[in-house]
Order: sequence, then C-alpha cells, then structure tokens
Amino acid sequence: MAPVVALLPLLALLGLPAARAGLVYPDCANGPLKGNLACNTSASAHDRAVALVAAMSNADQLSNLVNNSPGFAKLGLAAYQWWNEALHGVAHNRGITWASSGAFSAATQFPQAITSGAAFDDELIRQIGAAIGTEARAFANSGRAHLDFWTPNVNPFRDPRWGRGHETPGEDALRNGRFGEAYVRGMQGADELDPSGPDDPEGRAKEKRHRVIATCKHFAAYDLEDAGGGGGSVTRFNFDAKVTLQDLAEYYLPPFQKCARDARAGSVMCSYNAVNGVPACANAYLLDTVLRGHWNWTAHGEYVVSDCDAVYYLGSAAGGHRYKASHAAAVGAAFEAGVDNICWASDGAAPSPSQAFSQKLFAQATLDRMLERQFEGLVRTGLLDGPQGAYRSLGAGDVNTPAARALALRAAEAGLVLLKNDGGVLPLALAKSGSGGTIAMLGFWAAKADEMLGGYSGTPPFSHDPVTAARQMGLTVKTVASTAAAGPAGQGAGAGDTSAMVAAAKNAAAIVYFGGIDNTVEKEGSDRSSIAWPAGQLAQIKALAALGTAPIIVVKMGTHVDDTPLLALPGVKAIVWAGYPGQDGGTAVMNVLLGKTVPAGRLPMTMYPAAYIRDAPMTNMALRPGSSSSSYPGRTYRWFDKAVFPFGHGLHYTNFSVALGGAALSAPLSIQALVARCTDAVLDRCPFPDLAVNVTNTGSVASDYVALAFVRGTYGPAPYPIKTLAAYTRLANVTAGETQAAVLTWSLGDLARVDTSGNRVLYPGNYTVLLDQPALATFSFALTGTEAILDQWPQPT
Amino acid sequence: MAPVVALLPLLALLGLPAARAGLVYPDCANGPLKGNLACNTSASAHDRAVALVAAMSNADQLSNLVNNSPGFAKLGLAAYQWWNEALHGVAHNRGITWASSGAFSAATQFPQAITSGAAFDDELIRQIGAAIGTEARAFANSGRAHLDFWTPNVNPFRDPRWGRGHETPGEDALRNGRFGEAYVRGMQGADELDPSGPDDPEGRAKEKRHRVIATCKHFAAYDLEDAGGGGGSVTRFNFDAKVTLQDLAEYYLPPFQKCARDARAGSVMCSYNAVNGVPACANAYLLDTVLRGHWNWTAHGEYVVSDCDAVYYLGSAAGGHRYKASHAAAVGAAFEAGVDNICWASDGAAPSPSQAFSQKLFAQATLDRMLERQFEGLVRTGLLDGPQGAYRSLGAGDVNTPAARALALRAAEAGLVLLKNDGGVLPLALAKSGSGGTIAMLGFWAAKADEMLGGYSGTPPFSHDPVTAARQMGLTVKTVASTAAAGPAGQGAGAGDTSAMVAAAKNAAAIVYFGGIDNTVEKEGSDRSSIAWPAGQLAQIKALAALGTAPIIVVKMGTHVDDTPLLALPGVKAIVWAGYPGQDGGTAVMNVLLGKTVPAGRLPMTMYPAAYIRDAPMTNMALRPGSSSSSYPGRTYRWFDKAVFPFGHGLHYTNFSVALGGAALSAPLSIQALVARCTDAVLDRCPFPDLAVNVTNTGSVASDYVALAFVRGTYGPAPYPIKTLAAYTRLANVTAGETQAAVLTWSLGDLARVDTSGNRVLYPGNYTVLLDQPALATFSFALTGTEAILDQWPQPT
Repeated sequence: MAPVVALLPLLALLGLPAARAGLVYPDCANGPLKGNLACNTSASAHDRAVALVAAMSNADQLSNLVNNSPGFAKLGLAAYQWWNEALHGVAHNRGITWASSGAFSAATQFPQAITSGAAFDDELIRQIGAAIGTEARAFANSGRAHLDFWTPNVNPFRDPRWGRGHETPGEDALRNGRFGEAYVRGMQGADELDPSGPDDPEGRAKEKRHRVIATCKHFAAYDLEDAGGGGGSVTRFNFDAKVTLQDLAEYYLPPFQKCARDARAGSVMCSYNAVNGVPACANAYLLDTVLRGHWNWTAHGEYVVSDCDAVYYLGSAAGGHRYKASHAAAVGAAFEAGVDNICWASDGAAPSPSQAFSQKLFAQATLDRMLERQFEGLVRTGLLDGPQGAYRSLGAGDVNTPAARALALRAAEAGLVLLKNDGGVLPLALAKSGSGGTIAMLGFWAAKADEMLGGYSGTPPFSHDPVTAARQMGLTVKTVASTAAAGPAGQGAGAGDTSAMVAAAKNAAAIVYFGGIDNTVEKEGSDRSSIAWPAGQLAQIKALAALGTAPIIVVKMGTHVDDTPLLALPGVKAIVWAGYPGQDGGTAVMNVLLGKTVPAGRLPMTMYPAAYIRDAPMTNMALRPGSSSSSYPGRTYRWFDKAVFPFGHGLHYTNFSVALGGAALSAPLSIQALVARCTDAVLDRCPFPDLAVNVTNTGSVASDYVALAFVRGTYGPAPYPIKTLAAYTRLANVTAGETQAAVLTWSLGDLARVDTSGNRVLYPGNYTVLLDQPALATFSFALTGTEAILDQWPQPT
Repeated sequence: MAPVVALLPLLALLGLPAARAGLVYPDCANGPLKGNLACNTSASAHDRAVALVAAMSNADQLSNLVNNSPGFAKLGLAAYQWWNEALHGVAHNRGITWASSGAFSAATQFPQAITSGAAFDDELIRQIGAAIGTEARAFANSGRAHLDFWTPNVNPFRDPRWGRGHETPGEDALRNGRFGEAYVRGMQGADELDPSGPDDPEGRAKEKRHRVIATCKHFAAYDLEDAGGGGGSVTRFNFDAKVTLQDLAEYYLPPFQKCARDARAGSVMCSYNAVNGVPACANAYLLDTVLRGHWNWTAHGEYVVSDCDAVYYLGSAAGGHRYKASHAAAVGAAFEAGVDNICWASDGAAPSPSQAFSQKLFAQATLDRMLERQFEGLVRTGLLDGPQGAYRSLGAGDVNTPAARALALRAAEAGLVLLKNDGGVLPLALAKSGSGGTIAMLGFWAAKADEMLGGYSGTPPFSHDPVTAARQMGLTVKTVASTAAAGPAGQGAGAGDTSAMVAAAKNAAAIVYFGGIDNTVEKEGSDRSSIAWPAGQLAQIKALAALGTAPIIVVKMGTHVDDTPLLALPGVKAIVWAGYPGQDGGTAVMNVLLGKTVPAGRLPMTMYPAAYIRDAPMTNMALRPGSSSSSYPGRTYRWFDKAVFPFGHGLHYTNFSVALGGAALSAPLSIQALVARCTDAVLDRCPFPDLAVNVTNTGSVASDYVALAFVRGTYGPAPYPIKTLAAYTRLANVTAGETQAAVLTWSLGDLARVDTSGNRVLYPGNYTVLLDQPALATFSFALTGTEAILDQWPQPT
C-alpha cells in the first residue's frame, strides 16, 4: 500500500485527480454518450433517463440497483456510490473521499439537529441545509463524493432512550416536519434561483436542477435501536412497531409528509423496522399507498432507497424479520413494494438483484421503473448537463467559507437553552484579573473537542472546545488536564478522585461543570437503559458544591438525563443545555455564559423524570396514556404533564411580555368558508389566518425570542391532548423596551386533529391559544360550521 | 342550402357528427399519427409538440401560423380555428358553431365582468371561470368549438368613455389582477384535481391538462376605441399610448402579471395600440423583455396571439400605425417580437406568413418556436391523449346545467350595487293585492331581455328581463308595451310622449324606472363623447316624479353616467346599479328590489361627474393629476376625489360595524424580516401578515358584506395617492346581530409602491388602513428597516 499513499501527493502536484471512488461526470461532448438523448439538455429529464436505461443491457441494468453501482462502462458511466452522508455537515462514509490535508480535508460541522432544532428558526435551518448542500456538491464536483446524501433524519424522538434521537430535531411532529422541509429546500436549492438562469419551478422549459439530492429518513416509525439494552431480542432489525392508524397519521408520518410531499425531497429511505407486521422496506402500504399514491410523491425521478442491510434483515438473515424465506425473495419483495435502490452495508455478502430477477421475483416493468427514477434523479442534478450545468462551478473555495463558519457558530448559539438561572447568575460577570477573573471549567467535555459533534460527522476545520474558546477570549481558566479526572460520561462510572477538580475550583469566581452524556453513551445501534444523571458526575458536582465559594453552572451535553438531583442542589445556580453544538460549540457556550450573545433556544423534547421509562416500555409505540396498561404514561408534552422541564422550556437574560393587542380572531370563523377559499389541491396545507402578537422586551438586555403557539380545547372527540404546538416563529434582537410583532403562520392542518381512521379533521368548537411555555398570554377563538375532513387517510387493504 | 339544413338532424339520428368547422380530435389509435411520438402520452408535451412540428413540411408549417389554420391533412390534423370567444359565456364567433335548436343551441350567459366584478368575490369568479370553461370544452368535444378562448379582458377601465370598459372588472389594478387570476384558474382548471387522476402541478410525470386555454387580453395599455368619437383620427388601430414606466408597472401591467405570471394563462393577446412608439404586437420590450423574460412566462407552450388585424394595422394599412413599410414586414416584425399566431379578421386579405418567410423577414428558429408553443399548448389540453384523456367526457349534459344557471343568477345578485336608498324604501313592501300590490316598471330595459348581456355574448337558454321576472313572481305589473314609449337609451334622444308611462305609473305602489345606457351606446369600436345621464330619460323620470304618488326607484344599466341630476330629484328615493347582469339579470334585480336577496356589491369604478371628461383628454394615459396640464384631474379613486359615487361605494339593507378587536399589528414589523422569511422566488408575491377584522351586522336583515382594505400614508416619495386598495374579501350571510371574522390576505407587493423606474418598493413608514368606503374603522401600523425593492423592473433598451 505504501506506493499508493506516496502517489497521491505526486498526482496532486501534477494537477491530476487521484483515482478514487468519487463522482465522474460523463463526457457528453466527446465520450460514448455523445449524441444519445441522455445528453440532450433540451429533452426532459425523464426522457433522458429513459434513453440511458434503454441503452443498457439487462445485465447492466440489474447490476445498478444497489448503492455501490458499477455504472455502465460502455457508455462512459463510471461507478456510482449512492451512499453519502451529511447529517450536519459532509461526513465520513464510503461514498466520500476526504483529503488528508489541504482542500477537502475538512468540511463545516454544524450542530446536530437536536441543537439547531432547538433554535426554532426555520430560516436558519434552510440556510444550514443550503450550506451543507453547497459543500456536498463541491465535494462531488471534485470527485470526492456523489450526488445524493442521506439526510435529514426526521423521525420524531419518541422515547428518551433512543440512541439516535440527537440526530433529529426533537419529539414534535409539526416541528420535525417544518425542520425537514426547510432543510431539504435549502439543501436541494428549491427556493433559490437556479444559478444557470431564471427559475421555473413548474415548467419543463426550464427544469429545476437539484444542488444535491436530499433523503428523508427513516420511513417510518423508526426510533428504536436495541430495546433489550445490548444484544437483546428486540433490535431495529427485527422490531415490529405496532402503530395505530391514528398515531401513524398524526405523529409518525407528518414529518415525512412535509419532507417528501411538500419539500419534494428527491429521495426517501425506508427503515429497518417493520410496521404492523410488514418490514418498512417491503411495505407497499407505506411506500406505494401513502408515499407515492396519497402524497403524490411521484414526479422528478424521486426514488426510495433502503437503509443499509434493511433488505438483508427482511429476508432470512439471523436476527432479522424473516419476512421472506430467502434473501432473493426479500430483494424481490422490496422492489415490488416500491424500493428503487438497495443499500448493502457489506457489498457482495447479500444476494444480487440479478438472482431475484432470474427467479422472476420482480418484473421487468419494476426494473425499468427503478432505473428510470434513479437516473432521472441524477439527470436533475445536472450530471449530464456538461461543465456549464447548474452548480458545476462549486469547488474547494466553497467549503469552509467564513460565512459557513459563522453560520455554524450562530446555529450553536441559537440552539442553546437556558434551563435555570437563579438570581441572574448568568451571564457571568468576571473581574478583569485576579481570582475574581478566574473561571473553573470542569467535567468530561470541558476540553474534549470531539464530544461536540455527535453521530455522522466529518472532519471539521477546527474544533473549539469550551476551554480553548475561553482561553482565546483571554479568560483565566482553571481546569484538570487528565481525562479521567475530568469526569465520566457514562451512567455507571464512579466519581473517581475529586481532589484535583476541587482544587482547581477553589479560588475561582465561577465554577462551570460540563456534564451530561455524549456519543459514547447515546449512539446508533444502542438504546439506553437509564435516563438518570450519571452518578459519578453528580458526586463530582456535590463535591464542588461543598466548597460553597462560587456559584456552579452546569452545561449539559447530549439529550435526555433527569435534572432532578441537580435542581435539589442549592449550589447549582444555573443549567444550560447544549446538546451537540458542532465545531464551534465551545465558543458558542462561552459566548452565552459571558453574555456576548444571549440564549433563546427552547427544549425540543420533554425532559422526563428518570422513573418515566419504567412505566413506558420502549416497544410501546402508543402516544396516548393508558394504552395497553393503566400505568402507561403516554408520550410527549401532548399527553405527559409531569416533565422535569417541559417541551418548549427556555429562559432568557431578560423578560418578555406578550400581548395580542386585542382579539383579532374574536369573531367566529366558518370552517366551510375556510375550506371554500382554499385553492391548494391539498386542504391541510391551506392557510389559517395569521396570528400577530406583540412581543415586548421588558428587561434591559437585547434578546431573540421564540414565539410558540400551542392550541388546546375540547373540540372533536375525547381524549384531548394537553396542548399541541400549532405555530412558532423566532424574532431576532428585540432590544430593551422594544416591542416587535411576531407573525405566526399556520395552516388548516396545523389546527386539525386526527381521528382513529387517520383522517385529519377540522372540528368546530372553541380553541384556546397558549402563547409560550409557560403561557404568557392566552386567547380564544371559535370555529363554526360542521367538521371538515382535510385529509382522507388511505386505509390499508 | 336547404338540403344541408335538412341533413343535420338526419346525421344526428345516425349518431354521426355533421361536417362543421369545429374541433376534430386526431385519431392516435388508427390514424396517420399512430406511432408518432406526438401520440405517446408518456412523453412530455414539449417533446410531443416538437415531434408534430418536425413531421410537417415547411409549407405546412408556414400555413399554420394564423388563427384559421388548415392543419396538416397527411397526419390527420384537421383545420383549427384559434379564434374562440367566451367573455362571459360561450359566445357567437367564427370558431364556434351553434346548433339551431336542442343541444348546443344555448350556453349559460353570465353577467359581464363589470357586474360580476362588483361582487368583489374571487371564489365566485373562479367558479364562473370553471363553469364557462366546462361549457366551452363541451362545445369543443362535440366539434362545435376549439380549445382556446380569448377571455378574460383585464385592461383597467381607465377612462369612463371607453366602449369596452364593461368587459373588464373595473378600474383598479389589484382587483383586475385578482379577477383575472381567479377566472383563469377556474377556466383552465389549475386548482382542480385533474379528472384523469391525482394532480401534480409541478411534475412531468403527470403533466397538468388544461380544460381549455384562457387568454389574457389585451396586452397592453389598451383602453381606447375611437377617441375622436366616430371615424376620428385617433383610433385603437393607430393610437400610440404614451405611458411612463411608473404607470406601466403600477397600473397597466399588474393585471397581466397576475393573469399570466401567477395564474399561468396559456395565452396572451397583444393589442391594437402602440405603447411608447412601438405597436404592442411588434413590441419586443412588452412581449419578450417583460412578459417572457421578466415574468418568466415561458413554460407549458404558452403562446401570444395578435388581436384580429392588429398585425395588419401595424403595417402599411390605411388608418394604422404604418410602423412597417409593408404587410410582410409587419408579419416578420410581429413574429420576431414574440407573437406566435396572427389573427386576421378578414381571412386571405392580408399577406401570408409564407410571403414574409420567403423574404427572410423572420427566422427558421422563430418558426419552430411559434409552432412548438402552439402545439404544446394544444397537447396540454389533451388533444392527442385519446378518448380517455382529461376533460374528454364533457358533453351536452354539461352545458346549461341547473348549477350553472344558479351561478349566473347568484353572480348577478352579488354584483348589484345599492347606490342610494332614502328612508329604506328598498326592499319594496308590496301589498298582496290591489293597487298597493301594483308595481310600475318603465324605461328602456324593463322588458328588453337582450339588453342584459352586453358585448361578446352567445345565446342564453332563457333571458329573464325584469318584467318577465316580476310576473313570474306573481306581481301585478304595469308597463308600457311599445319600445319607443318605454324610453331611449342614447344620450341625444328626447323623452317622447310620456303620457302612457305616467298613466301606467299612476296607481302603482312603486315606480321602478330602468335606465342608463346599453350596448348600443357603449360598444367595441366606439368611445362616448358624453357621460351625462341621457336627457330623454331624465325628462321621463321628472314626469313620473311629478305624480308624487309613489317612490321612484331607478335601476341603472351599463357603466358610467353621472347620477347628479337624479340625486337632485326628491322623488327618486333609490338607485340600484346593475351593469350587464346576464341571462337572469331581470330575476336578480327583482329579487333585490323585493328583498328576496340583498345587495352587497361595490362600485368597481369611480362615478365621475359629467364635466370630468372635459379636463381629461382620452388620449392622456397619465394617472397622476397635473400631468401635461394643471387642470388635468388624474384618474381613478387613487388620484381623483370628486366622484359622484366613489369606487367601493355600496349600501346594504342593514348596517355593519367593523372592528379590529385591537391592534394586531401595533408593533412595528421589520421590512428586512419580512423579506428574509420570503421563500417565493418572486418577492412581491410573499404574504404580508393577514388582517382579521370583526364584522358585526348591527341591523335586522342578514346580508353579505364586502370588506375592503385601503392603505394610505406618506411613505416613499411624493406625490402620495389618496389611498390604494390593498386587500378585500366577501363575507357570506352575516345574520342580524352576528359578528363574523373577515380575514384579509395580502402580499408584500400589495403594500408596496412603484417608483419612476417601475420598481416595486416596500417603504418604511406609518401605514394607515381604511376599512370600507367610507371608512368604518381605521388603524395604523409601522414598517421599520430600510426600503426593499421587491421587483426590479426591466428597463427598455
């Protein structure tokens, strides 16, 4: 291998690209495809894809149905790897080739979705999607990646134990949908002018080009890794999620409805688990009836890809669903159900599509359909449009730009949530020098930069942990060098020797403890068996609190751990939640602690008490309390009201008052009139009248403010949720004493409820709107007329 | 000719269509086109059109560029007449073949746009468009019409003398745009599910089919027929409208922006007049720079057609523009500027495109472009989709349906405007019998059914004039049989002998005089030289008033005449404006007079005093007062404030109060924040926060209510308009004592102003909203930040 390694810099010196497994643009000008309709930029993407598929032999066709596609050498189509990851930045995975240094050795690593999602700012998410899409396309253009990326993850974070919850924007269906829509629009470029000319989103005359293809994952009801807690009998590969039509249509699928139907993501990934007896990747009800039929997600060569090895586990593999008697039968079933491309994690280990085809386990028409979708999707990225095509000019100079770095920092700052701030201890007022200017920074992630990124990460251009950031700011920092002494992340680990830690804290003006959990504890393939604070960390914090010399601020990493014991410690004056704040997460945290910026994020998930999981089996998918047993507590803020910190909680460095300025909707609105004036083909998407509220900063510090609007009422049938998020928006920089208008936009569907058949229904009755959590203002309006079905849900046959 | 007439019923008996000049669907299954890509429903419409054009010889191509196209016999394409009219119902014109009796001998005749427009109800207009489109397609399917229709007429009604003002929705740019958009969406079917399956407005996989093709006319600044008043020197065929960029972008073009850019009408008609020196049909700035370039109206085979003989008059024809030295040069100039099809009113009289082509006056690429657009437009109607195609099942049973008749009546009722109602004389309370139950119905249109239709009409299934309607209701009617005695419509005619009229009125409990003007006075090709009330009618009304026995109610037909002398007559207690109310106009009027329904329409135009026209030369296109002379009064309610009845005026049979329920927008909104959250590629279309107002019926009669929202303020540069309509909506059936919420939706562009370069700019400042005319409530809001250009207007080169 040594000669190859040595060769790479040499090729770079010669200006030649090194041979690697990245994208190769076919040569339409002089290559074998010259003259083929596929290269004709005046033809429609569909016709071009059909021409390409028609030119392939049956054997070539059959070999190109998997993630690691060999392409079609005779026509100059190079091998193509469909598996590229970019969850919160271009990531390390087999489709992407990172340089060892220089250009393409790093890419901007934004916060994980759970942190950027906490900003409750759709425009921010759109910008992050656009920035990641730009870097991803630059990698692809340079032969270092391909054109489709398996992001975002919009599964609702149903259970606090889930190892991949931090990849998602949180627990709420509305929020996850809006996050997914904004991210996909940004990444694919749907709302921008095509750099090659004026945009025409509707027309054939100028077909839209995608910057890259985004993938809504994991479809559907996927939110469990290993419920047994390590090698247990229930894993994501064999779990059959029993979900009612009501919960499916109300909770598990709406994020995909927005991501696929409304944002028109180019791809959807089916998940490992089964839903009501049928593995998701063989589930014609989900893939064909709902996704393609009901949501009309059919145009533009949009395709379904299987999660990696999901098809393997739906066949005869040990530990899997054993839904089909052979691997070949599994392949055929997946294709016939609506899968267009199968990802094998272990190339070659699973049966090839040609075996399934030769056994007549899927049809020629299915084969054509799959390939035409795949290639139409690629044509729509401009793969065959030549060097002047859209987005082709993106290159190394578009990666790690100052703007992207600033956006990563801003997203981290915007997502931080101030959970507690007794006596206004934050922001810290440190003296210019001396012990009054000393800050003790302790705990496992105070100086561990790699803790900030979370799952599916790439190499960031830098990694500013809190201690590094504090020193760059010129602070006098006391910390503990040894990792072991800095404190454990895991639940079971003890406190160890706290003496070094206590010594570091002794003369400090403020003690900041960086705790919680990290990606060694919550991670893909694993679910937790406890959501209590790590005992060793608690012991350390207690030891620090015993000093009594300075206030303790806890900065909390990762997702759910129960803060109850911290709240019982008088020395802990403040708690800030940071999640996984990305490459500049340390800077973001220190800026907030010191008041250089202010916190305004909101918890995107219910902070459950540690005992919650005892009564809520991870395998119980029901949202409503009392399902299956009377002790079943229900899930999310809509049904569970005993949270340690509720969904939407978040304090500020100032105070806000919210006023409606009167009751703009005090007169009843007729449901029939609302429906009659709807011109959208999809009733649930039609607007409900805007809600404008006046937000006044009554304190002395300028601050962003997230306006959350929940609705509640006894309209429609019982049981009634506690409340439901129906709209939100984020105001920027409301200065002291200033009043800004927050305009909340929502749709008819956002106010509707879902019945037991899955229909989304707008009911007459009295609606109460609760502004903020806890409510700073409430108001009511009435809908009159008779109930209207906004979305008639398709029933399984 | 007799044998042919006899033959028609025979052919009908045999089930064979009679030979006529209507649409023939090509036979894709067995005809010459079988196997041609044009017949392949899986291919895109564009590719199908290209295939069709490629199969034609050059001579065939050149012969198919005019309204009376011979088709292409070898491929089984029959002759096609592009000229079909349906302004307010399927009309008589050369593309349409009416049956002499039975099916297709009649079609629903809705009110003229000036009357239905007065309802201020976009959903009503959409329904009318859909109903007309359905009947039009039924005619076409039966070989009695073709697939494109030259409607709607959205030119703003700038000058009260204009002979075609009643074809338009009125004088306001916003209203005409919203009317046009609603009408086109209804007619083409943009907002419906395609009857052949689920809709996919964006995608190629399921291309949208148009029910018929609508045509936005007349592009642009066309609103003058014969300013000299009969054979004068300034006619529509030679008028050069001098329009500033500001007036063009602010007033003359916005209706087309909505009709073409936003509703995506399949066709636009260029007008007779010139604009700033260049005839509209040779005006590359209008057709190419603005329409296709700036508005991106390029997709879907959308095409431009010339008004009939407009190209003739832009060449060397006497009385025309003499813009080109020969007719052939005119044809070439029109094609190169962007016209795709030329209408000749006199087939064969003008030079053929082939002459122009042989003289190299237009290019081969232009020829291809024109034909591809035309045929793509037709493919998108399903012309080549076979008998199972969308909308193919529409037939005779879909014409004159009870629903369409009811809609025509409802539209007439909704558009009636109550101008005056002293002492609540209306609704009339007639006794059950005796003289107290007698109503005198006099004046020229009391019993003249054909007066109700106006220009571009077809044969209605019935025509209920007021007297007929009153007798159907069982009223005891006194009238005057002789037309002459019933009163004149024209300005100059005298009163004649009023004795019969006075005798009829003598013992009546109420005297209703039906006056105003009709289509013999205001009509295409003619402009008026006076807008005073016809003197003969005034004399008759005075003679009736001299009786003193019963209140006089005047029902006013047509558009502008100055009501000042009527208002001075104490005996005239009430005035109702009816315009041209369509086939059931008499019923609508009587229903309103008797209170079976209530009036709620609003004047869609300023009622100028008779002297207005003295100071406003018809050829002066300027909107602002003082342009060209200090006595120039300006045009429309935005600049002229001495109206007899202002734009938006309209009384009710009850009273309304309007309340904002507080100041929902009392906090300032940042312009930059509004723009930042806009995801539309076109900033002017992005929503401004909804305005919800509470409307309370404080009287005792249930009534519709039109909520009009005008804005005014000194934001941006002077001069400032008096006010500008920015939003409106119509509430249905607000019952006595009830409060309903009216939700007004508007866009950023609706609040913006247009600068002298034509840019649409949103300015910071204080905005006052005036609700209703006169204002029942006002409120203010502020926009902060810096001005933002929402639409950078393209400059002529």
